[in-house]
Amino acid sequence: MDLNKIRSTIDQIDSKILKLLNDRMEQALLAKRFKNSIEDLERENAIMEKIKTSPNLLLEPEFKESIYGLIISWSKKLQARDYKVIGFQGEHGAYSEDAACKWDNDLLAIPCTTFNEVFERVNSGLFDFGIVPVENTRAGIVESVYELLINTEVFIAGAIDIPICHNLLAPPGTDHREIKEVYSHSQALSQCRSFLARNKLTPVPFYDTAGSARMLAEAKPRGAACISGKLAAELYNLEVIKDNIQDFKNNRTRFLVLSKENSECQGTKCSVTFSVQHKSGALFSVLKIFADAGINLTRIESIPTEPGSYSFFIDFEGSNNDPAVQEVLNDVAEATTDFRLLGCYIEKFIINQNFSEVE
Amino acid sequence: MDLNKIRSTIDQIDSKILKLLNDRMEQALLAKRFKNSIEDLERENAIMEKIKTSPNLLLEPEFKESIYGLIISWSKKLQARDYKVIGFQGEHGAYSEDAACKWDNDLLAIPCTTFNEVFERVNSGLFDFGIVPVENTRAGIVESVYELLINTEVFIAGAIDIPICHNLLAPPGTDHREIKEVYSHSQALSQCRSFLARNKLTPVPFYDTAGSARMLAEAKPRGAACISGKLAAELYNLEVIKDNIQDFKNNRTRFLVLSKENSECQGTKCSVTFSVQHKSGALFSVLKIFADAGINLTRIESIPTEPGSYSFFIDFEGSNNDPAVQEVLNDVAEATTDFRLLGCYIEKFIINQNFSEVE
Repeated sequence: MDLNKIRSTIDQIDSKILKLLNDRMEQALLAKRFKNSIEDLERENAIMEKIKTSPNLLLEPEFKESIYGLIISWSKKLQARDYKVIGFQGEHGAYSEDAACKWDNDLLAIPCTTFNEVFERVNSGLFDFGIVPVENTRAGIVESVYELLINTEVFIAGAIDIPICHNLLAPPGTDHREIKEVYSHSQALSQCRSFLARNKLTPVPFYDTAGSARMLAEAKPRGAACISGKLAAELYNLEVIKDNIQDFKNNRTRFLVLSKENSECQGTKCSVTFSVQHKSGALFSVLKIFADAGINLTRIESIPTEPGSYSFFIDFEGSNNDPAVQEVLNDVAEATTDFRLLGCYIEKFIINQNFSEVE
Repeated sequence: MDLNKIRSTIDQIDSKILKLLNDRMEQALLAKRFKNSIEDLERENAIMEKIKTSPNLLLEPEFKESIYGLIISWSKKLQARDYKVIGFQGEHGAYSEDAACKWDNDLLAIPCTTFNEVFERVNSGLFDFGIVPVENTRAGIVESVYELLINTEVFIAGAIDIPICHNLLAPPGTDHREIKEVYSHSQALSQCRSFLARNKLTPVPFYDTAGSARMLAEAKPRGAACISGKLAAELYNLEVIKDNIQDFKNNRTRFLVLSKENSECQGTKCSVTFSVQHKSGALFSVLKIFADAGINLTRIESIPTEPGSYSFFIDFEGSNNDPAVQEVLNDVAEATTDFRLLGCYIEKFIINQNFSEVE
């Protein structure tokens, strides 16, 4: 153990402290949504009492009080601003967060553990928006998200389709020849299978792509790298050893932006969900309504709800401000059960400007 | 999710922040041992630059600068004090830390991952002392510590024998009837086997007793408790649901205090290690030297060094300032190989004042 090692330990501690301070500010912003006023002296005193009496030998009460004085006043400053919040599943640096930033960079992206949490918090009004992946060009649809769309009263406020560029990341200074194991979500690992095989790297499945980047930055396991997006590299201070390592160039994911209220902005695309009676021609007669009106469908999915029973999702081009579309929607609602217009919205399609040829 | 839940998340974040700040101060105190002066503007600027550019969206540079201004000036204040450091294996709140405090409450106890680390850092002078368990009344000797004693140039500066009182701990407010699983080090779990069986609790082995307390405090898994000492309960703000749950009342552990230099204080107990030739009567003739001098042995251990070869440890009553003892040591050194006087020291025996009858 020498001074450099101690300093690198301190640097790691600092990045954890900063991450926790950031997490704390996120929670403070959420807390504000339950409060009428920012000032809450009782709570402030309770925090101060708690931290003053916490048994950390090297932190004297005056030091802790000054630190928390700063933290609390910064929380209040943030609470006074009017942040709009978008929830995503995963850790900070996830592809979903990347999609959220590309959707609207003014939104504050807050991580959730599960898709369920994203839906619930949009539904309860804790989040203004949520963002969830629905389809990847290689891995197909994310069925659990469709199930949540059926079962939760939320609307689609937008859609965004982004390129997924996987990168091999490692802590700065890692000797590339030493890398033996590569951590990431199993889906990212399988999307980079050829790259890993070609370079004789062992894939190690991890619960989350950005989570693997965070783990790598914090624990710095020897001979390890991870696969994650550029946002994670930046956030966790990892070096991009090789970019665009996905086996297929055309790797894209489509995300839906969720909101509690039906958006009133003028959209160009609509999503509906419905069920039909379990008899021959039932779905056909619904599709005929669209065809007769000359409406172009862009997607149809059937999701099993209970054994033998299906819900359908249809995306089509058009706006619900258009009287012709309104008529079609009325006809479809009459011909089906559990009909719901999920939203009429804008879809963004992001083209990767920094794309370099796959090796 | 409601305000109470958010506040409890914030409280958890705060206790992590305080723990990390404490860890950081420990590292700063260790760093000082490599530096001639406390002031190091270059390093301070490097830290400030790093934290200012770290990409935590909700933390603006001025806020981070004020926080780190306080942190750095507090580090320097601590560095100016003359802390003596004792290393122990485990997380804060471990029984070893408890033993260290009972040995000398003015020492600063710093956690290490392994026994090896404790020995190395004492040997390198990074720590003034180390404390390691050598024997538990129920589990026997800690062989890996004896091996390190043979292979590392450190001395024994003292010994302390403390009662090990296991407690069932859980986060405050836990419904006792909900507890199903109990986390702890496998040894602690096995020492409380009857208690766990009687209460139909499932033992879940964890890498460390205090580590299980910390995990419980941070992650608050549902229906879970842990087994740990009172120090861990205090440190991680856990409730003592039941104290003294160990199956045997007489559960004690003996610890050795290690130092780089041979202590010069007047001891009452000596420890020596040596090897003997592999022939009949070799050990006997060594023991005869002690017996002839009327010296009372309090322990003898044989530790295999290589196949068929053993090192011996002998503790005996006496002081190396006593000429009779000095003569015996000279004779033993002549009759053996690899002879080393590990130390002449005081042994403390702590009686538990708060002992309540086991149920």
